Amino acid sequence: MDSDIGFKAALAEAQKGSDEGGVPIGACLVSADGKVLGQGHNMRLQSSSATLHAEIAALENAGRLPAATYRGATMYTTLSPCDMCTGACVMYKVKRVVIGENVTFVGGEDYLKQRGIEVVVLQNEKCRELMNKFISNRPRDWNEDIGEEDK
Amino acid sequence: MDSDIGFKAALAEAQKGSDEGGVPIGACLVSADGKVLGQGHNMRLQSSSATLHAEIAALENAGRLPAATYRGATMYTTLSPCDMCTGACVMYKVKRVVIGENVTFVGGEDYLKQRGIEVVVLQNEKCRELMNKFISNRPRDWNEDIGEEDK
Repeated sequence: MDSDIGFKAALAEAQKGSDEGGVPIGACLVSADGKVLGQGHNMRLQSSSATLHAEIAALENAGRLPAATYRGATMYTTLSPCDMCTGACVMYKVKRVVIGENVTFVGGEDYLKQRGIEVVVLQNEKCRELMNKFISNRPRDWNEDIGEEDK
Repeated sequence: MDSDIGFKAALAEAQKGSDEGGVPIGACLVSADGKVLGQGHNMRLQSSSATLHAEIAALENAGRLPAATYRGATMYTTLSPCDMCTGACVMYKVKRVVIGENVTFVGGEDYLKQRGIEVVVLQNEKCRELMNKFISNRPRDWNEDIGEEDK
């Protein structure tokens, strides 16, 4: 089942990010016929990157693709996508976004739906655990990652 | 005047992209007190990048910044921002987006306003010329850059 491949890859990327001491969010772009097109994880802390969120990293690692390929594709991400990553999915008109969890953060899910993209939320416990641990240990880094001022 | 600095830098980046044979769009992020925080240009053709649009490149080159810095900042871009770059400006809550032209392409201007970001369109002739030339010479590359299927 392609959803298994995509979600497992996204979760493995999140774990890799966690192991590297980074923001533990992973993503994987899967084609209409179930092939992994690209995958990646948040690189804010590892590369001092302000834009390599997991979904952007997955799109970047997938390289240049024809518009038609995105249109049948599914973006798997371990966390509800921020406005930037939402916009990337909207721009490339992916068919579906599958989200690991949206308890620790809610991003642009409504806007994705509004723009005709199917949204599925898995409420996966492992995704939530990774985020809860990171947010609790590094609240300032987490706020920076989503453009929020420290409370 | 800070708007001169930012727009000039964005236009110089677009020209640089054009000289490199790339998509001729440039951007520059300027702080509330008029300092250039980062600038860049579209790197699709030069780096086979699916995500380094001009605004993303400018944000990336600016590096990690506190949320408060973005909130006072202006993003100068030579072309109306696509949904991804719109989302990036929304996520970081920049104060203002100054757009070189929106004749050759209209992106997420309405959504920027809806999310509380000031939008200014300059209708600069040089920006339009660069885009018209590129779209006319390389229509497929342009469609790919904005996630559109070839007509």
